[in-house]
Amino acid sequence: MTNDHATNAHPAQSTFARRTLFGATAAAALTATTVGRAQATPSTRTTPHTRTTPTTSTTRATPTLRIGVYLYDGFSLLDPTGPTEVLSRLPGAEVTMIADRRRPISTDTLATTVLADRAFTEVDHLDVLLIPGGDERGTIGAMTDPALQNWIRAIHRRTRWTTSVCTGSVILAATGILDGREATTHWSAAEYLETHYDVTYLPRRYVESGRIITAAGVSAGIDMALYLAARLTDEHTARAIQLGIEYDPQPPFDAGDATKADAALKARAAELILASQKR
Amino acid sequence: MTNDHATNAHPAQSTFARRTLFGATAAAALTATTVGRAQATPSTRTTPHTRTTPTTSTTRATPTLRIGVYLYDGFSLLDPTGPTEVLSRLPGAEVTMIADRRRPISTDTLATTVLADRAFTEVDHLDVLLIPGGDERGTIGAMTDPALQNWIRAIHRRTRWTTSVCTGSVILAATGILDGREATTHWSAAEYLETHYDVTYLPRRYVESGRIITAAGVSAGIDMALYLAARLTDEHTARAIQLGIEYDPQPPFDAGDATKADAALKARAAELILASQKR
Repeated sequence: MTNDHATNAHPAQSTFARRTLFGATAAAALTATTVGRAQATPSTRTTPHTRTTPTTSTTRATPTLRIGVYLYDGFSLLDPTGPTEVLSRLPGAEVTMIADRRRPISTDTLATTVLADRAFTEVDHLDVLLIPGGDERGTIGAMTDPALQNWIRAIHRRTRWTTSVCTGSVILAATGILDGREATTHWSAAEYLETHYDVTYLPRRYVESGRIITAAGVSAGIDMALYLAARLTDEHTARAIQLGIEYDPQPPFDAGDATKADAALKARAAELILASQKR
Repeated sequence: MTNDHATNAHPAQSTFARRTLFGATAAAALTATTVGRAQATPSTRTTPHTRTTPTTSTTRATPTLRIGVYLYDGFSLLDPTGPTEVLSRLPGAEVTMIADRRRPISTDTLATTVLADRAFTEVDHLDVLLIPGGDERGTIGAMTDPALQNWIRAIHRRTRWTTSVCTGSVILAATGILDGREATTHWSAAEYLETHYDVTYLPRRYVESGRIITAAGVSAGIDMALYLAARLTDEHTARAIQLGIEYDPQPPFDAGDATKADAALKARAAELILASQKR
């Protein structure tokens, strides 16, 4: 092991790393983007509901893309984090974690706690709204909270895209904005979605209907977010993000398609989900 | 829209939801697992360094599987959250977010802040250690922190599996535990890994070498975690988790394989990554 960098650690560390750790492509990109980066990088985060007034005179200032992710206790970790990984790489993206109030929000398994940076009452405009899925208590809680439901309806009026992952589509359905539309959800909630709402379930990775895109269970949010990235920018940018997150999926098994799963596997899946939910 | 559940919200909400929102499979699984669930679900989380003494007399008590995820400022969000979504569904899994101390840790984009529940000095034993990748400052910081490097070496001595995602493998390499081994990392850090350490880079989704599994960039952690889930339990369980997270990936583009990407796409990917890093 040649641990040679241990001796030139702190001061020049950042420059050192960019030139070497991430290789020649990164160095080339850095040269190309130094100017844009200097102006695009705020030293503190701006709030999602405050428009940032451009102060530079460059011709290609990137407009801010306000993306809000609504979190509630019991959300499934990958539902918001997969899309956030993708969407936060978009030029001008400003992704904010939103909840009932600014506080720590824990996943269904209690394995992970994410800080919500804004109360939903503080946010009155978003370009993209994303509602993740979660455990039954969290999902039903969001479906039956009148203030939250009103906020979703109000935000949806002016979004470019209103999106959901997993059972997040049932939360959207409860607001009425999916009435008469096609949508998807986690396979285990499909019957519920169709039975309780005027919604046609489609067993697809994601379903676009007007300005609404719903994604299937948990991991489907990644596929949806790449599609959304292309719609928000262009295909080359979306492809570059896909390369950036090295998303060339090769699961070791072929077991993720519920339409091909047998009853025993479905029962085991539901059993593991329920047993892992610690709230 | 038949918003009939709005009237029977709180008290019986949980039962209601399990019986209907998640469908018949969930109800069947619930029946099958009620006993196991009651004994497997602690009302408060136990610490990862405390062995839980089984107190029940059942024959199939699930041993605790201690999984620790080390977070540092500048980590990439999906690196730890993809595997955590998978591994937290394993029977007996207890996933803990660990950092230099108990504090909020922000991603490279500053979009998301995750709470670390334990300082690494509080953790002396893990069954599975996972080191995510991150931005250059975060990665180099972890590579050059002697106390952290010593902790990783000490923990690795007794893990069942020591794992990494993305540039997390460079952090592992800095400890020396990858000496003479094959490993993978984010495509942009491959040259660095091979040049600076006695490690052979393989452009695969994940590489197993002894008790160490390294995953490629960001999203590859999901594939790795499903493989690891099977090694920790059995293939049927891993397949059930895959179905639970509906991981039947269908990215809208075929752009995630760096060995097939042209220079322009690589440069754009690096440009977007660097521009999105707000620290």
